Amino acid sequence: MAQKPSIPKGTRDFNAEEVAKRSYIMETIKKQFQLYGFQPIETPSFENSETLMGKYGDEGDRLIFKILNSGDFMSKFSEFFILRTVRFFEANLISQIKKDILPKDDLLNDDTKASDFYEKFFKQNILKDDYNLNFKIFDENYNSLVYLSYLDNKDLAEGLFNGSDIDESFVAFEGEKKKNAFRLAEIIFSRWILKYSNRLSSIICEKALRYDLTVPFARYVVQHQNEIEFPFKRYQIQPVWRADRPQKGRFREFYQCDADVVGSKSLFQEVEFIQLYDSVFTSLKLEGVTIKINNRKILSGIAEVIDAHDKLIDFTVALDKLDKIGEEKVKDEMRSKGISEDGISKLQPLFSLQGDFGDQVGSLKSILNASEVGLKGIEELEFINTAISNLGLKTAKLQLDVTLARGLNYYTGAIFEVSAPEDVKMGSIGGGGRYDDLTSIFGKPDTSGVGISFGLGRIYLVLEELGLFPETITEATKVLFLSFGSEEAMASLEAVSKLRESGVKAEIYPDAITSGKQMKKQMTYANRRHIPFVVLVGEEELKSGMFALKNMETGAQEKLGLQELLSTLQ
Amino acid sequence: MAQKPSIPKGTRDFNAEEVAKRSYIMETIKKQFQLYGFQPIETPSFENSETLMGKYGDEGDRLIFKILNSGDFMSKFSEFFILRTVRFFEANLISQIKKDILPKDDLLNDDTKASDFYEKFFKQNILKDDYNLNFKIFDENYNSLVYLSYLDNKDLAEGLFNGSDIDESFVAFEGEKKKNAFRLAEIIFSRWILKYSNRLSSIICEKALRYDLTVPFARYVVQHQNEIEFPFKRYQIQPVWRADRPQKGRFREFYQCDADVVGSKSLFQEVEFIQLYDSVFTSLKLEGVTIKINNRKILSGIAEVIDAHDKLIDFTVALDKLDKIGEEKVKDEMRSKGISEDGISKLQPLFSLQGDFGDQVGSLKSILNASEVGLKGIEELEFINTAISNLGLKTAKLQLDVTLARGLNYYTGAIFEVSAPEDVKMGSIGGGGRYDDLTSIFGKPDTSGVGISFGLGRIYLVLEELGLFPETITEATKVLFLSFGSEEAMASLEAVSKLRESGVKAEIYPDAITSGKQMKKQMTYANRRHIPFVVLVGEEELKSGMFALKNMETGAQEKLGLQELLSTLQ
Repeated sequence: MAQKPSIPKGTRDFNAEEVAKRSYIMETIKKQFQLYGFQPIETPSFENSETLMGKYGDEGDRLIFKILNSGDFMSKFSEFFILRTVRFFEANLISQIKKDILPKDDLLNDDTKASDFYEKFFKQNILKDDYNLNFKIFDENYNSLVYLSYLDNKDLAEGLFNGSDIDESFVAFEGEKKKNAFRLAEIIFSRWILKYSNRLSSIICEKALRYDLTVPFARYVVQHQNEIEFPFKRYQIQPVWRADRPQKGRFREFYQCDADVVGSKSLFQEVEFIQLYDSVFTSLKLEGVTIKINNRKILSGIAEVIDAHDKLIDFTVALDKLDKIGEEKVKDEMRSKGISEDGISKLQPLFSLQGDFGDQVGSLKSILNASEVGLKGIEELEFINTAISNLGLKTAKLQLDVTLARGLNYYTGAIFEVSAPEDVKMGSIGGGGRYDDLTSIFGKPDTSGVGISFGLGRIYLVLEELGLFPETITEATKVLFLSFGSEEAMASLEAVSKLRESGVKAEIYPDAITSGKQMKKQMTYANRRHIPFVVLVGEEELKSGMFALKNMETGAQEKLGLQELLSTLQ
Repeated sequence: MAQKPSIPKGTRDFNAEEVAKRSYIMETIKKQFQLYGFQPIETPSFENSETLMGKYGDEGDRLIFKILNSGDFMSKFSEFFILRTVRFFEANLISQIKKDILPKDDLLNDDTKASDFYEKFFKQNILKDDYNLNFKIFDENYNSLVYLSYLDNKDLAEGLFNGSDIDESFVAFEGEKKKNAFRLAEIIFSRWILKYSNRLSSIICEKALRYDLTVPFARYVVQHQNEIEFPFKRYQIQPVWRADRPQKGRFREFYQCDADVVGSKSLFQEVEFIQLYDSVFTSLKLEGVTIKINNRKILSGIAEVIDAHDKLIDFTVALDKLDKIGEEKVKDEMRSKGISEDGISKLQPLFSLQGDFGDQVGSLKSILNASEVGLKGIEELEFINTAISNLGLKTAKLQLDVTLARGLNYYTGAIFEVSAPEDVKMGSIGGGGRYDDLTSIFGKPDTSGVGISFGLGRIYLVLEELGLFPETITEATKVLFLSFGSEEAMASLEAVSKLRESGVKAEIYPDAITSGKQMKKQMTYANRRHIPFVVLVGEEELKSGMFALKNMETGAQEKLGLQELLSTLQ
């Protein structure tokens, strides 16, 4: 049964040229990482779901690829659910709902009451079960569903719940009653699945593909803290997976490329990361990138000064448009987002932020002179800028950008973003920052870290656009031996083996030429694969022990002995 | 909420040393692949489930990791199931079951009758639906389940099916009838899930992690056949995932490392693959590996001669024990597996297979002289052996092994397996063979291929056991600058930058020393990380512009200017 082959949307196959180019970028970055003292680690492609879930916000959780448990994942759960529900009936809890919670609608609409009910009756009576309690499905939603199903299936439910006053009773059903209880439980189960299938995934998927490298890194640091020397400088280049809607330039599988240091608060780390960016892009011959820097503390300071702690993003988004829409329209936007006139007037110096790093810092100081955190941010920026000025950058430039507001959920100090040279239209090709408390989610608090990442996909596009990939990296086979017959092939293979030992990429066409047509086919093969040299070993060459070497570009042909052949091709 | 961090069973974290050693193996193999003219490709980590399922046998299917569909994967399915089932009732099919299939038990026990029923009624009446028909759930099992649920819920079903004679009628239910129909459908749904959850996975998981590199490669070849020049020599080094029970040395995520040629039947490919194995293991300094070779055609020939086509594996398993249990016991085992006395006596020459390749081939010929396919196999073996004898191997040896029977499901010609040197107890460290029809499953028939793979995990263990990893590969940072203060750090960083530019892996300890204790901490850091040199830039050095270089092994210390420092460390 033939299938028309395809791959999942948002994924890619890479051919030899693409693999070579991607690998060139990764190897260049890797080399610099190592020169800067970073050590490689690798983590598994999938982590326990609980390691990842809840770390990226609701949207992130939705985009995590979950891996189905192996074996009979579903029946285990459904059997458990149904048995548990029958026990719920047997514990006479429906009559409790009927009796105790009035008006009944409250139970369905009032979370607190439902929750109380849950606490009071359900946990006491039901959760003695030895089964994995992590399922966390028997909550107020479940109660509501049971109650609704009860109302909806009175004929079935009739007789199950006799309305007795027994509070803590537990009567095992039998016969018709048992049958009806199971039937109702089955209905409740399918309704639960219909309604709460989003919660099903955490039950039937205990593993998930990693969504980024940062959370697995944090997990790694905590798990291996006793084997690690801190400060720990690690790099990691591995694929990550996101169930994003596929679109141009956005894929469901892509590499991330991160370097981080954890366990040091020294600002020299920030300085070194700026140097690292400069070194990597210089090595890639990508000159003129802009490394933008900001500091979360400055943004906090501004928010403090204008009394708008919750409007950081609105404020930066608006300010970012200054070049495009002008001062007045930016102010209008700020007003529309609820920033006060007083606040806007305090921001006035921001609208004329100009000049070099020092001038800009001067303007910022005039705004932030009343904010302790803001001034701390300025002090950090100045330290970093002074250090970089002293050390000098090779080809990149460092630029203060107060509108830079990426990662506000986790960055606590420096924020970085790298832009491609101005003539290339491309978003950021790298970013990073300092986070003060990455590992506390896994039980290791107070471990400051700072890190940067490289956007491999975009760097690839930029290098492609600017023609910066070295030609040598895609050079595959250097010489192809044509094949005229078994004896000739054997002689060729001896030469091929010698060439390979000398480090020359050499091939022999496997099938023998028996006609002019096949000769042409082999030459075409060499041409299409951009193999620069072809060797012909025919009857004559076999006798003389010579090799006819043909330059595929010039067409020139010469006869050489083995040693000459080796030295020519090497 | 702190979690105790862990990783899924069967997966691994790799630290810097492990990454470096693994990468050394992969880079060595990669280099040889390229010298032999193989081109790299990469395929996505997950494929469409249908690309993988059914390609590895039932056991393989079970071990494929399935990825849950994103979004509301389950309710989409359950709603569809329930609606479809209600429509089933509305089409009056239960009465068809009651009326037409007698005795009723037959429907439940006789697949043919159930299948007929399905063909006749169900497809006609129901499958007009525009929904994805690939669900393939509405089959005889479904019918049985519906019927059982009907019998089990007569009170509910009563009134739904009036036993009318209408054959092709379709009456939309309303009111109480509709309610009962949905209720019964919900019961059927939950029962289906309870009973057929193994089929649920193919519905809610349309993607799956790749299980090997061969099937994705076949898919790649067919999908990209118009961009590929044949014969196509490709290599691929990527992780694969299997839900195997984790055990010592067996992991759920591991790298495969394959080289294949498709599109040529020339036996020179086999010859080159043997050379390639030899080149790789010689490059890894792993000398004395044995490359075992067999040919599927010889096994087929033997089976033909002894008239036991279905006992190939029994036969080879028994023969493989010859060294351990002796000729008589091997014969006993063959008898117990049903191989005839006549057959066993024909095999007599196999029991004295000895001597070099030529001698063994001689014995085989005496057995196989009546088998055309067997003699073809011998001819192929002889061709390969002659070529290898002429060309010579560097450190490996080639050995005929008639008991080699891996991959009998797909190999059609040569079969390879590589054993580590005899003093290392380790299973095979590589294997491969020729397959005549890999790509036909994806619609491209008659494309012969041959390939080999390297067992990275086991090669790692062998190199470790024999101490064959070069020391240099795990050498990380070469020099650490201690940090005595901000000014000193700045001077150090200038030197560090220069060192890095000269290709020296250099670091500066980020936090300043303010006490003897911290001094000790930084020295310990250098020691634990095996950093061979430490540089101290204190107040004195800052004034004089000198650097105090300490050799951590000898303890020797000297003061150097920047240029001297560079040339010493380079």
